[in-house]
Amino acid sequence: MPRAVREQQMLDAAVRTFGQRGYRAASMDEIADLAGVSKPLVYLYLNSKEDLFTACIRREAQALTAAVRAGAHPGLPADRQLWEGLRAFFTHTAQNPDGWAVLHLQARTHGEPFAAEVRTMRAEIVAFVTQLILVAAREAHRDPSPAEREVAGLAEALVGAAESLAAWANATPGVSAKQAAATMMNFAWAGLGNLMEGRSWAAPKS
Amino acid sequence: MPRAVREQQMLDAAVRTFGQRGYRAASMDEIADLAGVSKPLVYLYLNSKEDLFTACIRREAQALTAAVRAGAHPGLPADRQLWEGLRAFFTHTAQNPDGWAVLHLQARTHGEPFAAEVRTMRAEIVAFVTQLILVAAREAHRDPSPAEREVAGLAEALVGAAESLAAWANATPGVSAKQAAATMMNFAWAGLGNLMEGRSWAAPKS
Repeated sequence: MPRAVREQQMLDAAVRTFGQRGYRAASMDEIADLAGVSKPLVYLYLNSKEDLFTACIRREAQALTAAVRAGAHPGLPADRQLWEGLRAFFTHTAQNPDGWAVLHLQARTHGEPFAAEVRTMRAEIVAFVTQLILVAAREAHRDPSPAEREVAGLAEALVGAAESLAAWANATPGVSAKQAAATMMNFAWAGLGNLMEGRSWAAPKS
Repeated sequence: MPRAVREQQMLDAAVRTFGQRGYRAASMDEIADLAGVSKPLVYLYLNSKEDLFTACIRREAQALTAAVRAGAHPGLPADRQLWEGLRAFFTHTAQNPDGWAVLHLQARTHGEPFAAEVRTMRAEIVAFVTQLILVAAREAHRDPSPAEREVAGLAEALVGAAESLAAWANATPGVSAKQAAATMMNFAWAGLGNLMEGRSWAAPKS
């Protein structure tokens, strides 16, 4: 079996183990067993537990960022773009709960250099959302344009809300990715003021 | 000087050191120096670096929760309650940046049992916001009432957004607590849909 394939199997096993048991409690024996390889081979390919964890964070961060980017189609109106991006985000985090646990919980709770890896991914997603809000404002011909700083703050708020909601959705039985995305869209687009009056964001039928 | 006063001085010094230099890098020598006491006295009163850090997290968590609860007056309309609660939250985190860094960054990035302390505080704040949204829905005579699960999701989203925005506001020079609270209120109450059309949430003059 080629090395690249073996490595992915090791990373699959590692993400599952780190995500479910936590970074500290996870053992290299367990990861090797789950991957169906010998422990020396894991060390040979991925060097150390720290390096293996870093490789997991990078892989999961790239996969999540790619999923969100692929979800938002630049041709759609702003709210549809946001809706599609959020659906992609919640679908990805629901389908990869261990990957999300690695990024949202494990990578941030075991100090540096792991936390820095997640900060980099997060900054990229915040920049993406900032751009999306700026385009939405332009589309709405909002005049004057919202201050750059306000848009940056809104993007930070949106990303924080989505992170929090994804952790909650994964921990709450029976909340689907689509429901989580709809709650997020209601919150972020319609706002509580409208929701209290019974005016939700109207999700497209697709 | 009574022990209780000395302990508070030690905690003041510890919160500042942990918040600014991080849990790992902070030394007990530094903390004792800053508190103006001997290192053995810090160990005598607070036992270990771990226990000192835990005491910091608990004190800062209680202070933050108390500030938010004191901010929201039960007699006000829902949006005013939320506005006052958010102002209290952003004022407190702006005035106590080291305390907020301890809670939001340090306590969550150095494993258990520290992360569990913050989860407890967070659960309390989420429950408080859930209650606030339920009351708001009742006030608006929303019929049928929003599903409990939807409200729980909205509360998670709101708390995640506020956490994220507070970290951003503290890291961005020139963003005042009131501006951060206004951005948050615009996001959470008016929603991006209204903001894009130029309809912000109208802050009370006070």
